[in-house]
Amino acid sequence: MTEPRSVAGLREEFKAGRLDPAALVGQLGRRADETEDYAAWTRRLDVDELAPYVERLAGLRFGESPLWGVPFAIKDNIDLSGVPTTAGCPDFAYTPERSAFVVERLVAAGAIPVGKTNMDQFATGLVGTRSPYGPTRNALRSDYISGGSSSGSAVAVKLGLVPFALGTDTAGSGRVPAAFNDLVGFKPSRGWWSTRGLVPACRTLDCVSVFTRSVADAVTVADVVGGFDPEDPFARHLDFSDFDSRETRYGFWDPAALPSMDEGYLALYEAFVARLPGAPTPIDPSPFLEAGGMLYDGPWLAERYAAVGEFLEANPDSLHPVTREVIAAGRELGAADGFRAMYRLAALKRATEGAFRDMDVLVAPTVPTIYRIPEVLREPFHTNARLGTFTNAVNLLDLCAVAIPTEPTPDGLPFGVTLMGLAGSDYALLDAAARLRGESSGHNGCGGSVGIAPAAMG
Amino acid sequence: MTEPRSVAGLREEFKAGRLDPAALVGQLGRRADETEDYAAWTRRLDVDELAPYVERLAGLRFGESPLWGVPFAIKDNIDLSGVPTTAGCPDFAYTPERSAFVVERLVAAGAIPVGKTNMDQFATGLVGTRSPYGPTRNALRSDYISGGSSSGSAVAVKLGLVPFALGTDTAGSGRVPAAFNDLVGFKPSRGWWSTRGLVPACRTLDCVSVFTRSVADAVTVADVVGGFDPEDPFARHLDFSDFDSRETRYGFWDPAALPSMDEGYLALYEAFVARLPGAPTPIDPSPFLEAGGMLYDGPWLAERYAAVGEFLEANPDSLHPVTREVIAAGRELGAADGFRAMYRLAALKRATEGAFRDMDVLVAPTVPTIYRIPEVLREPFHTNARLGTFTNAVNLLDLCAVAIPTEPTPDGLPFGVTLMGLAGSDYALLDAAARLRGESSGHNGCGGSVGIAPAAMG
Repeated sequence: MTEPRSVAGLREEFKAGRLDPAALVGQLGRRADETEDYAAWTRRLDVDELAPYVERLAGLRFGESPLWGVPFAIKDNIDLSGVPTTAGCPDFAYTPERSAFVVERLVAAGAIPVGKTNMDQFATGLVGTRSPYGPTRNALRSDYISGGSSSGSAVAVKLGLVPFALGTDTAGSGRVPAAFNDLVGFKPSRGWWSTRGLVPACRTLDCVSVFTRSVADAVTVADVVGGFDPEDPFARHLDFSDFDSRETRYGFWDPAALPSMDEGYLALYEAFVARLPGAPTPIDPSPFLEAGGMLYDGPWLAERYAAVGEFLEANPDSLHPVTREVIAAGRELGAADGFRAMYRLAALKRATEGAFRDMDVLVAPTVPTIYRIPEVLREPFHTNARLGTFTNAVNLLDLCAVAIPTEPTPDGLPFGVTLMGLAGSDYALLDAAARLRGESSGHNGCGGSVGIAPAAMG
Repeated sequence: MTEPRSVAGLREEFKAGRLDPAALVGQLGRRADETEDYAAWTRRLDVDELAPYVERLAGLRFGESPLWGVPFAIKDNIDLSGVPTTAGCPDFAYTPERSAFVVERLVAAGAIPVGKTNMDQFATGLVGTRSPYGPTRNALRSDYISGGSSSGSAVAVKLGLVPFALGTDTAGSGRVPAAFNDLVGFKPSRGWWSTRGLVPACRTLDCVSVFTRSVADAVTVADVVGGFDPEDPFARHLDFSDFDSRETRYGFWDPAALPSMDEGYLALYEAFVARLPGAPTPIDPSPFLEAGGMLYDGPWLAERYAAVGEFLEANPDSLHPVTREVIAAGRELGAADGFRAMYRLAALKRATEGAFRDMDVLVAPTVPTIYRIPEVLREPFHTNARLGTFTNAVNLLDLCAVAIPTEPTPDGLPFGVTLMGLAGSDYALLDAAARLRGESSGHNGCGGSVGIAPAAMG
């Protein structure tokens, strides 16, 4: 098995005839066998299931298929036709006839789904330990958590089992695992990537996300899957041109105002901020943090209950005990209090939008800390809550975000920062991320994909 | 007292020196004295309170003040600085230091607030009878209801006490009284006219509205009060240009598919539809009607409780018994059910947006029937609910609307139709309304006000 490759790198090898998709899928399968103890998968496709995806490539033009032959993994709350969707809860499983919109798009572009990945059950968690398939191990430091809820997708990418993997992101599930596994994690603006074919966590907030080894690969995936889906009631038309060809003005959460940051992570964050180009503006994080605090302490917990409460009531023993306790708390929440929370959120959103008058891209730490797996198993609630301190607000405030890795701490612990922008600034954000990482940014702002060699990983 | 005049008509008289604002306000005050039994007001400003508004006109340039000297009335759930806001509940009253955004704008343009108008308490009702200030009488047929909740504002305009009056509109409160009192009732797109300084009914849905005798006057008011208010968390930037200079394609609710229409009203509606220009498209009303049914049978009732529930619990005897019963029902609604209703609404919204692909303006009856005052007092719930059958959906589905009167039934009962359009189509809708009414439409689509003589009333 060679080193993990980027989408662009794979395309070069396919084009030159040095590799073919069937051989690649075989190689990756063997590597997945060797890394089973990471608990990255809920189910991998067998040879018979893979065959149709490989065979149909013969009928696709390489030049018109930006993901021709590229294997990918799918978080197990996203439907793949004919394969059970478990959402991390085997008793909940159903077998969809139709793939999710984003999966349909990827397959149409030539990508090969190789399996469904492990996750915090019902996408409720940021740890990667709330799964009957076992806690997913960190790909760099296997005694540490992988982060969640898109745990298996991130670890599968970092282990080199796939060049990219789909996650979902409501509270930070597409960003926390990126920080913990030295990856790029892109969470698009709400409504840009269809959520049709997803097991909802909070339907009004959920996003599909993607883990990649480079920003360029995230752009390639975005170009393929982004677009208005008339079957998704939460789809929307975004105007990316508002954010075109503008010189990036950076803002950053004032490090002195950040609660509960580990010392080592704070030092990495300060070092990252010190290297930001231009004259970046320090931003008061408090309205963002207050909004974030509302995600599990407000009506959105009732959305999780709306999604799976009926199943929970009928099958309480089928749930992971931690997940059951979290989601059941949404049962008693009142609608009037829910509206009051939405009013407060609307006021906070106005405040945070105001902050974006003076900046295009807001930089923040992705996480305040990391835990060893036993620490989270011992105290599953507080640890999880702390991990979301910086990520929770993003969907509530209608922002898009891309998490990028920094170098690790001197102790070798992975860390990352997140760039955030107003809805519709997705490509501007990705461009900024590529520049900050030293990837040459070839994106032209018109949806064309770029071919960039993956940057060296930290 | 001369006949009631339009804003444009008043301006001509002011300009020619045939009338001055102080004299006009005096005339209107005497007329209001004579019509006290209509119960249109909760409170009229006295001479001392009016004086500063009249005196300051000397410092305003006539040409730059599109409402110079024009008296107007304010529904009593909208703040006027220094005058109690009761929302139709005297024990709830508070005296605001600052006027509502829309009132500030009107006063800045030279308008003179002359009083606060009667209303269904807490803007909960479409009848005009749910008020401790007495049921507001219909201005044309005083044994009939005025419609509500903006009852007094509509009646004050029709009685000739003011050329225009502010209402609010959540379920149809700015449209039903227009139909019942032979007026134009304009309910703008949500977020265009600030709701700062309003006692909320459903904060996520509430709109300020206006009653006028002509579409041209509604345009004049819209030009003055419309605009982004950064202090209103629900304010938004609307792009009116999307709807510019397009030949209007009409759709209409298929008369055969309409439930519970009175025969006389159905005949008037069919006659109106038969006169629509072009080749209007019949539209299935069912997704609109289903969405409308959710307003009082879904989480939005909890919004009303969120607004005044605390007051209700502390002062149950202060509420009108019907209002208390309606709003208290919002107490027990659950947040999870609320989200489920929002998902269904999102799907219905996608369906109704689809209907607007083939039309720009949707025509519907404003009301299915009208009642005599004693009928509503006897059975206050079902009568009220029936009146909202056609109006309830508009704010839920994020539409704007203008209600225009038709001729009355052979029995002399007032009726009207409503034009609806997608958010942002406000000016296109007003243009269409002016054309359908035979007003010469001088609006240029760029926010300039027009001066049109008021059309003859039906």
